[in-house]
Parts: sequence; C-alpha cells; structure tokens
Amino acid sequence: MDEPGTGRLETFSDGVFAIAATLLVLEFSVTSGRDLGHELLHIWPAYLAYVTSFLTIGIIWMNHHHTVSFIGRVDRTFLFVNNLLLLTVAFLPFPTGLVGKNLRGPGEEAAALAYAGTLVMMAILHQVWWQYARRNRRLIADAAPDSALSAVDRAYWPGVPMYATVFGVAFFSPLAAVVVTFAIAAFYLPSAALFDR
Amino acid sequence: MDEPGTGRLETFSDGVFAIAATLLVLEFSVTSGRDLGHELLHIWPAYLAYVTSFLTIGIIWMNHHHTVSFIGRVDRTFLFVNNLLLLTVAFLPFPTGLVGKNLRGPGEEAAALAYAGTLVMMAILHQVWWQYARRNRRLIADAAPDSALSAVDRAYWPGVPMYATVFGVAFFSPLAAVVVTFAIAAFYLPSAALFDR
Amino acid sequence: MDEPGTGRLETFSDGVFAIAATLLVLEFSVTSGRDLGHELLHIWPAYLAYVTSFLTIGIIWMNHHHTVSFIGRVDRTFLFVNNLLLLTVAFLPFPTGLVGKNLRGPGEEAAALAYAGTLVMMAILHQVWWQYARRNRRLIADAAPDSALSAVDRAYWPGVPMYATVFGVAFFSPLAAVVVTFAIAAFYLPSAALFDR
Amino acid sequence: MDEPGTGRLETFSDGVFAIAATLLVLEFSVTSGRDLGHELLHIWPAYLAYVTSFLTIGIIWMNHHHTVSFIGRVDRTFLFVNNLLLLTVAFLPFPTGLVGKNLRGPGEEAAALAYAGTLVMMAILHQVWWQYARRNRRLIADAAPDSALSAVDRAYWPGVPMYATVFGVAFFSPLAAVVVTFAIAAFYLPSAALFDR
Repeated sequence: MDEPGTGRLETFSDGVFAIAATLLVLEFSVTSGRDLGHELLHIWPAYLAYVTSFLTIGIIWMNHHHTVSFIGRVDRTFLFVNNLLLLTVAFLPFPTGLVGKNLRGPGEEAAALAYAGTLVMMAILHQVWWQYARRNRRLIADAAPDSALSAVDRAYWPGVPMYATVFGVAFFSPLAAVVVTFAIAAFYLPSAALFDR
Repeated sequence: MDEPGTGRLETFSDGVFAIAATLLVLEFSVTSGRDLGHELLHIWPAYLAYVTSFLTIGIIWMNHHHTVSFIGRVDRTFLFVNNLLLLTVAFLPFPTGLVGKNLRGPGEEAAALAYAGTLVMMAILHQVWWQYARRNRRLIADAAPDSALSAVDRAYWPGVPMYATVFGVAFFSPLAAVVVTFAIAAFYLPSAALFDR
Repeated sequence: MDEPGTGRLETFSDGVFAIAATLLVLEFSVTSGRDLGHELLHIWPAYLAYVTSFLTIGIIWMNHHHTVSFIGRVDRTFLFVNNLLLLTVAFLPFPTGLVGKNLRGPGEEAAALAYAGTLVMMAILHQVWWQYARRNRRLIADAAPDSALSAVDRAYWPGVPMYATVFGVAFFSPLAAVVVTFAIAAFYLPSAALFDR
Repeated sequence: MDEPGTGRLETFSDGVFAIAATLLVLEFSVTSGRDLGHELLHIWPAYLAYVTSFLTIGIIWMNHHHTVSFIGRVDRTFLFVNNLLLLTVAFLPFPTGLVGKNLRGPGEEAAALAYAGTLVMMAILHQVWWQYARRNRRLIADAAPDSALSAVDRAYWPGVPMYATVFGVAFFSPLAAVVVTFAIAAFYLPSAALFDR
C-alpha cells in the first residue's frame, strides 16, 4: 500500500474527461419558433466552440492516458495535482458556453479571455503534473525507457507558450483566438500527440 | 508503444456513448401547474425524439464496440476520426431537443433537418472510421477472419444512404423523417446489427 | 463471436444507471434571495422525490448487476430489451422532477401518475428482460444452479404488481403514491434484494 | 454468491463520484452582454464553491476507493449505507450552486447552512459506512492488517466534528464557513489522506 499504482487515478480521470466532453452540448440554446433555421445558422460560434473544446479534451485525455502508462506509483502530491488538472478540464464547458454565446457580440473579449485563460491553466497544470512525476524519475515505472520520457517532454513543453499566445491574441481578436485554438486541436495536437511514433 | 491497443479508445468512447444517451432526458421541459396532465400528452414529439435517439445511440454503441473487437492496433488518424465520431454522437441531444420542441410547430423543418443532418454526419464518420481501419487490413487484428470483416462491411454500408434519405424526407414531412428514423432504430438496425449471426 | 458475453452490455448499463442517478440533482431549482431558507424547506417534495428515485435506481442497478452474473450469453433480442430497460431508467429524472415541482400543487395527480407509470414500465421491462433470458435457460450460464434462478424469480415477480398498486394509489392521493414508492425503495427492496442470502 | 465482492459497488460508486464532480460546472450562470467581464469577476463565490466541492469530492472518492481495498465482502446493509452515502455526494452540486449564487447576498446564511449540512451528513454516512464494515472485522478482508484499519480510523474520525464546526461557523459568517471548507479540502484532507503513509 506504500506505493499505490495508477488504477484509481485513471478511473476517476477517465470519467471526468468523458463527462466534461459530453456536457459541452448542454451549452447550446436556441429559442424555438419560425426563425429556428436562421437561428441555427446564426449560432455558428457555438459550433466552433463546441468542436474546439471537444477535440481539445479528447486529445488531452489521450495524452494523459498515454503518459500515465509510464508512471509506476503515485503519491499524495501527485494525486492532488491530478485533481487540480481535472478541476480545470471539468470547468471547460463554462467558458466554452461563454464563447459560444458571446463571440461576435459585446462580451466577446471577456469570453475569449476566460476561455484562453482556462486553457493556459490547464496546460500549466498538465506540465506541473508531468514534471512532478518525471523529475529524477520520482514516480516513473522502472520499465519506462528514458527515450520515452524525452518524447513526453517534447510533446508537453509547447502547451503553455501556445495557449499563452492564444490568450494574448484574445485581446486583439477574440475570434482569431478561438480559431487558433481550433487549429491547434485539429492540426497541431494530433501531429504532436504521443500515440504514434 | 508503437502499436497501442484499443483499450484507451474504448474507455473514452463507452463513456461518451452512455453519457450522451442519458443526457437526452434533460431536453424535456414542461411548465408546472393545473394543465400538467394535458401538457404531458401534448409533448409527444419529445417522447418520440427521446426514444428514437436513445435506441439509435444504443445500437451505434453496440456496433462500435463489436467492430473494435476486430481492431488490433490504433494510429493517430484513427484516434482522430474516432474523436470526430464521438463529437457527433455527443452532439445528438441538441437536435433531439430541437425536434422534441418544434415538431408540429413552425420550426419543425429546420429541427428535422438539423436532426437528420447530424445522423448523416454520424453515419459518414462511422463509415470512414471503419474503412480507414479495414482498407488493406491496416489496423485489423491478425486473428480476425476476412468473413467477419465482410459482415461488418454489410452492416455498415446502408447507414449513409439510409440517413441521407431521412434528410430528404425532412424537406417534405418533418414528422415522417423522425418516424422513419425511429423505425430504423427499432426495426432495421437491431436486425442488421452484428451481435448475432 | 457467436455467443458474445455480457461484458459490453454491462459497461453501457452501468454507465446509464450511475449517470441517471446523478442527473436527478439537476431537477432542484430555487430562486435565490432573502427567502432562500424558507424556500429550501418548502421544496420538501423535491427531496422526497430525489431520495426515492436515487434509492430505487441504486437497487435496480444492483439487481440488474447481480442477475447478469447468471447470464452466460446474449442475443439480439436480449440486447434490445436491455436497451429499452435502460431507456426507462434514463427517463426517470424527468418524472422525478415533475413530482418534486408539483406535489401539493395543482399538477400533482398528473405528476404522480407520470412517475408511477414510468416505474410500472421499468418493472415490466425488467421482468421481460429476465424471463426472456431465463425461459428454458435460453441465455443462462451452464454453471448457474436452478435454485439461484428461482431466487431471482422470487425477487422479481412482486415488481409489477407493486408499482401497479402505486399507480392506482396516485389517483386517490399523489402524496401517498410517492411515500409508498419511497417505502418500497427504503424498506422492501433492500430486504428482497439478491445480494445477500 | 454468499459473500459477493466489492466490484459491483465500486463501479457504481466511481461513476457517481466522477459525475457529481463534473456536474458542478453546470451551476455557473451569467447573463451575456457588454458587462460580461465585470460579471465574470463578480461571481467569485461561484468559483470558490466550485473549487471547494470539486476538491472535496475528489478526496472523498480517493478515501472511499482506498478503504474499499480492505473490504473483502459486502452485505445488504453495507450496500444500502453505501447508496445513502452516494445519494449525499450526488446531492452536493445543488448546495454548491446555492452558495455560488447567494454568498455575499441576502440568502447567504441559508445557502451556507445547506452546504455545511450536506457535508455533515456525508461525513456521518462515511463514518457509519466504515464502522459497519470494520466492527469486529465484519466485512474486512482476511489479508488486511489491524494496523491498516487503525490508520483508516484515524483518517475518518475528524470528519464529523470538522464539518459540524463548519456548520456552526455558518451561523456567524457564511463566507468563513465556505473558506474553512475550502481550507479543509486544500490543506487538511490531502495531508490526512490515506494514499501515502
């Protein structure tokens, strides 16, 4: 019991990732009636925000899951940081809804900053989570080769600067900030992901 | 780690399917009060939409799960297509709610088109998902016999034309489009399903 | 692949049971403000409905799970009936919310009938689900002794008459119908449950 | 079948914990528009309540999961108490939302009392749950050493007095009650947790 494995942590984390992604749909809302067709086209920012957040959560989940496979034991601090990371992921439906409802409207800057800010926080916590486990192979499984750890390092390091840039872009163009976030989820992250050599 | 298995993909997918099906109930809404009994009968389109979507998700989930059993490894592209497929499944509660609230009202055509359009997208992505894995047995497990793959082919191909027809029907009769979708979920899909010889 | 096991069915079912139970909390709603304390006491029907439905789902889930352990294979029909059963379970948050908002108000009879009607449907489907598997040991695992099957029979048969009685009571006293349902979940079901000799 | 293991109980419990934590985000609500930025700062009580409840659920989940590893069999009573415990955990999003919407407003005392009261109930049920299993090693696995049971005792006993104190504080200062609950989740619970010697 001194060095519990990662099973417990994975069950809870998997649940939170899948639920957070699926709750994103609850942020859509339209008034019913004659203009429904028009309104369904008008809410394109909500679709953009939904797709961006869903893909982002899916990829973060896969990175999380893959990285955990190199971790051989967990401690109190690691579990706590993992909890903070999940807290940020589970929070994402709220700023996603803000972007969906406010983009191209008067509140778009605040919405985009809240969205990008959440992603920055998530990237920082994911980095802390990994570095805590990896430093001096603190929690790394004996069987994990150093080359695999370096691959994870390379995949994780761009996260924080990338989302910090999105945060900066949001001051100038909220729409551009969301589009860049979408592009990261659709083009950059899949290619930088770890599942594939 | 070069050819990761399907375990990770299945956990996330199972979660999204079950959650999306269970979230459908949140689309019901009535005003409380003296007329509640009347209102509960009046919202029959919401029941029809609920049952149709729940059965559809249940069957797609089972097909997905069954097909995955023939897949021996995953790659980056496959994981990304799987994510897009889940994104469409998780989106279904929104058009289901639109149908429930607008059928027999002025917005019914837009609602039915949104609903059928989502199903077409889902069918296309499920087909792409399967064909990507199956082409030249790219991701197929060595133990899977060709005859099993052909059975999956036969079960999957009608999806796109079937839902495209529903989309076409929605222009003429939104109600008919939903009823046909219900009939597919209740009668066609179970018989075409793969779980049983 | 001819006689698939119950693993797939259990994953999806477990998810739906746990999610439906947890979604019940979303049916609570109060207006904020100075009278919050008074209002929190005033919504006691919502607490009663919540506790009743949560305990009922918990016990049905455990019976489902236990019974599945005697089932050795599934077929198309069984999967379809299981899907219908889950559809009813996932629907429960809606009538639970109706009871919570309408009990002691003008819509209470309609709300209680909708609630009891859902439970009757659930009991019927659970009975059909079991009888289909059990008749001539159609889907029963070879290792399951007849005595265990008879124990399941005894535990399942009171379900339909019991909830049909609740439905009848709802015509005379909606409150009594909900209280009886609560008593069944809190006192009868646990003692009739299967987990314990 | 006389002494069923804990697998079934764990699946359902894990689901409820993860879903309850993830549903917390649905309690956020703002009006869109020009003042969105201001409003996002103004709802700080909602962030405080969200973080407090998310961390609390995460830690209770981990304690539950860890303690279950010492339990070798379950009986009817234990399953029922576990169900009551989950009912309380699944209820938490409601009082969390009350605190988020009412803190620093006229309903803050009622909101904080509802929140603290739910936590007291949860702590009592978690204690009953453990003591029922532990008394005379009723449900304890043979392999579990007495020293491990004593460690669980020490980790569990402060729960009830701690949250009872929070309840008392809520009469004098609702804000202080929530801040103390946050401090318990962020500082005390992690250090008292069981995962680490």
